Amino acid sequence: MKFSPLVDELIQSLRALPGVGPKSAQRMAFQLLERERKVGLKLADSLQKAMSEVGHCQSCRTFTEQDLCPICSSHRRVNSGIICVVETPADVLAIEAGGHFNGRYFVLLGHLSPLDGVGPEELGLALLERHLTSDDVSELILATNPTVEGDATAHFIADMARRHNVVISRIAHGVPVGGELEYVDSTTLALSFNGRIPLL
Amino acid sequence: MKFSPLVDELIQSLRALPGVGPKSAQRMAFQLLERERKVGLKLADSLQKAMSEVGHCQSCRTFTEQDLCPICSSHRRVNSGIICVVETPADVLAIEAGGHFNGRYFVLLGHLSPLDGVGPEELGLALLERHLTSDDVSELILATNPTVEGDATAHFIADMARRHNVVISRIAHGVPVGGELEYVDSTTLALSFNGRIPLL
Ligand SMILES: [Zn+2]
Ligand SMILES: [Zn+2]
Repeated sequence: MKFSPLVDELIQSLRALPGVGPKSAQRMAFQLLERERKVGLKLADSLQKAMSEVGHCQSCRTFTEQDLCPICSSHRRVNSGIICVVETPADVLAIEAGGHFNGRYFVLLGHLSPLDGVGPEELGLALLERHLTSDDVSELILATNPTVEGDATAHFIADMARRHNVVISRIAHGVPVGGELEYVDSTTLALSFNGRIPLL
Repeated sequence: MKFSPLVDELIQSLRALPGVGPKSAQRMAFQLLERERKVGLKLADSLQKAMSEVGHCQSCRTFTEQDLCPICSSHRRVNSGIICVVETPADVLAIEAGGHFNGRYFVLLGHLSPLDGVGPEELGLALLERHLTSDDVSELILATNPTVEGDATAHFIADMARRHNVVISRIAHGVPVGGELEYVDSTTLALSFNGRIPLL
């Protein structure tokens, strides 16, 4: 213990954030205590509410505290007939930042990884297949990461989707192999959408 | 709005932390939501308590939610008769990490900066002088940063302390000029303590 239980506890709690080391945690704690107490209280409130109330969209599985996320609530987006399958909510943000995609999403919240116990059920593939069966879906764009696991997941979903009357494509040009979708710039992402290749 | 009000608000609140950009804030929010909700709730609780309850030690002015911080509560540290004057609570941590100093501290919470309205009163110098008058203090070590403002503050305090029967010293060797005490390694800090020069 260096100062007092509450200060030490605050530094420890900040260190648990991704990418925050001991020096940064200390710096954050002191800056908040010295001159940004309102910022700290606001963050406490945001964290408390988000951790307690945010769940998943019942249609696309992205994060939201509502039944449907804003995109799945948009008739224009749903009526596009296009579903883009991504691994994470961060991928949705990356594609939305490009502003070139007008369909809706399906968020796997991961990729197939049998050794970690992640199979079709964990990725919500039954829900995705319900969309293909019941909704008016004309195209399924597979935008999982261009990694071994992401490719395997895309092929697994393509096999499932072939049982339905839907064009299946995989984003292609532009995304660097081995990279993560979340970190690709929006122009490259736009290219990869335009150059998507139908899976036969 | 990209997801829902609570998720967007969480990302905005995290961005307000020092050193956290938009990508990092998003990454933190998603990681907490995906698999570390308890970590997020714990941080919310730590922030709420620290922002509301942490004040300043009545003796040395460092952060604590108690009347006296652990160091000022230690008879051994107080009876050493040595007070080390630093600018910030982070400087206390840096010196404590070295483990070579056994006295107590006085934390200015800044340095003299007339243009910003920071004068002797804001730095608590009346309280420091009460310690020199009433307590059994044999030495005052001035460990303000080796910057123009830190040096000016050290000399101002030295002038004040000369009215009392106390040895006045300034840490010297090792701390790079223009640097910040908080970022100096503990060996260098130890050198600068050993090589302190009495101010005549
Ligand atoms: Zn949705
Ligand atoms: Zn104290």
